[in-house]
Amino acid sequence: MKVVYNEAQKLHYPQHFVASGTITANPEQPERADRLFAAAVGIGLEHEMTVDQGLAGISAVHTPEYLQFLQHAHERWRRREGASAEVIPNVHPVRSTSGYPESVDGQAGFHMADTACPISAETWDAVRMSASTAVQAARHVLDGESSIYSLCRPPGHHAYADMAGGFCYLNNSGVAAQCLRGDHDRVAILDVDLHHGNGTQGMFYRRPDVLTVSLHCDPARFYPFFWGYADERGEGPGLGYNMNLPLPRHAGDAEFLEALDAAIGRIAAYSPGALVVALGLDAYEGDPFGGLSVTTTGFARIAEKIAALRLPTVIVQEGGYLCDELGANLASFLTGFGEKHRV
Amino acid sequence: MKVVYNEAQKLHYPQHFVASGTITANPEQPERADRLFAAAVGIGLEHEMTVDQGLAGISAVHTPEYLQFLQHAHERWRRREGASAEVIPNVHPVRSTSGYPESVDGQAGFHMADTACPISAETWDAVRMSASTAVQAARHVLDGESSIYSLCRPPGHHAYADMAGGFCYLNNSGVAAQCLRGDHDRVAILDVDLHHGNGTQGMFYRRPDVLTVSLHCDPARFYPFFWGYADERGEGPGLGYNMNLPLPRHAGDAEFLEALDAAIGRIAAYSPGALVVALGLDAYEGDPFGGLSVTTTGFARIAEKIAALRLPTVIVQEGGYLCDELGANLASFLTGFGEKHRV
Repeated sequence: MKVVYNEAQKLHYPQHFVASGTITANPEQPERADRLFAAAVGIGLEHEMTVDQGLAGISAVHTPEYLQFLQHAHERWRRREGASAEVIPNVHPVRSTSGYPESVDGQAGFHMADTACPISAETWDAVRMSASTAVQAARHVLDGESSIYSLCRPPGHHAYADMAGGFCYLNNSGVAAQCLRGDHDRVAILDVDLHHGNGTQGMFYRRPDVLTVSLHCDPARFYPFFWGYADERGEGPGLGYNMNLPLPRHAGDAEFLEALDAAIGRIAAYSPGALVVALGLDAYEGDPFGGLSVTTTGFARIAEKIAALRLPTVIVQEGGYLCDELGANLASFLTGFGEKHRV
Repeated sequence: MKVVYNEAQKLHYPQHFVASGTITANPEQPERADRLFAAAVGIGLEHEMTVDQGLAGISAVHTPEYLQFLQHAHERWRRREGASAEVIPNVHPVRSTSGYPESVDGQAGFHMADTACPISAETWDAVRMSASTAVQAARHVLDGESSIYSLCRPPGHHAYADMAGGFCYLNNSGVAAQCLRGDHDRVAILDVDLHHGNGTQGMFYRRPDVLTVSLHCDPARFYPFFWGYADERGEGPGLGYNMNLPLPRHAGDAEFLEALDAAIGRIAAYSPGALVVALGLDAYEGDPFGGLSVTTTGFARIAEKIAALRLPTVIVQEGGYLCDELGANLASFLTGFGEKHRV
């Protein structure tokens, strides 16, 4: 298996983050990519450097106005008197909106769901490279590789078609799935990140051609709070093509694997031509977010079950934050996957 | 004319405010009430102290879950490790939402549109008293007084049925209008604040029995950004019963008065039994928000035109921020109104 990655993805270094009303360091640090990359090559994956894949893959799932905003927001913001170093929203078009504002502070509210995804001068280039990594990986699978590890960082699964959120700007898993649709009538996304993949869900909520399935900590008391409940099943032509499996706080391997069986059953019944795994490692028991209690060996068990689907698979990196075992958890997953995966 | 007011409304003293990503002092300071009260009694208004009017008037326009949140959020928030002194949201259910979260940080995002309306231990009592002031004033008009000045502070017109925003928690103008509905089939709200009255609009958007009309600075580059455009006309049974008159930045008396003629024409055609004036004084040329350029004498002209509607009228205080002429602007409005008003 290859690992696709480009160090330019590390240029984005977000500073601003708010928890319980207090500004603290942003946990989505570039060092995450170093740790994950070292683990991937450490178990023998061949490194392929990402080259810029252009905007076509990104534009297929994101709106033009949002991409304009992401690209230019920081320079517009910095022209404002007394502006902070990063773009941070302070108004939000909650639950309904009429017009699209012209000013960058209004647009920041429109396009940013929360304060966890500040935009710096380096953000656009880094998130584009992260999305290019997903496109490049997906193209290899279209070209016949059975599986590939796309080291996307910044992550993507909280990003909607027109909105950043939760450290995410461009939805790398969504970009990869849409790319796979080029050769496959049906594609599935299985999201095993600690947090509900709300952006991915939102992106495909009315579409039957991309099945979205997410396992995550119960959102009633956990980010993203407003989505990720079991009764969200899709809408219109997409009804029945979204599945949420919220897990109780601190659920461990056994509960996770049981829910995963349901997820895999749904995916198998859907019979997709290819699979995207939105691989968060923050369900780990030692992750700083402290939501679930999956163990390092648990990640291997999770991977084995997914591998047994025998589908061409793009593994897209999502969350998983700095702790001693971050690299070991990735190694456990990729090793478990590689040992069982046959297409 | 009487002024209804209770000093307890001053107990709410918000600290947190964000502009262009930088935390600054919150402009909605209790001193506003001192200045406005002194101006009202200075031109001869008789002071009537607000007494608590209970929850019925408030509950008629706000949801139970929102009132529970407002009342208890601060004590819940302060039990969180490392929590800030005030409740400040950092996640927002932008444009759609599925579940209602259980945790206070999730609920803060659900019920707070922006970071301009922090909740302290004193907020609930102060905003309840402010809303009681509106109820008490409206009851006097129901009992036959032709007009009354309700010195509501904190203000209310950005508060929705279930959401605080822009310094506002309970929608005092909406509460007064709903109270007036007790004796009148049709009630109109005319909002002359610098900012669009988005909460009031949202509250009555699907209702034909309360006409909402707002003059304000064009939201394309001004708070509240996402609402206040001319094409927002109401929905369902409320279609045609909302009117927005956005004005270009820095518009002065002449442009304001011309738009006001259109507003008054619409209200006269509606033939309401009573009127609520949502009286912001921040359209003033010297207001710190710098949006419009109405003069001190301009407020008298505005008041005279409204008085000529000859409707029983509750004047509810909305915005208008600390500047030397704040009191003079109120005095100008109330004097102009009093001289022309006959029912």
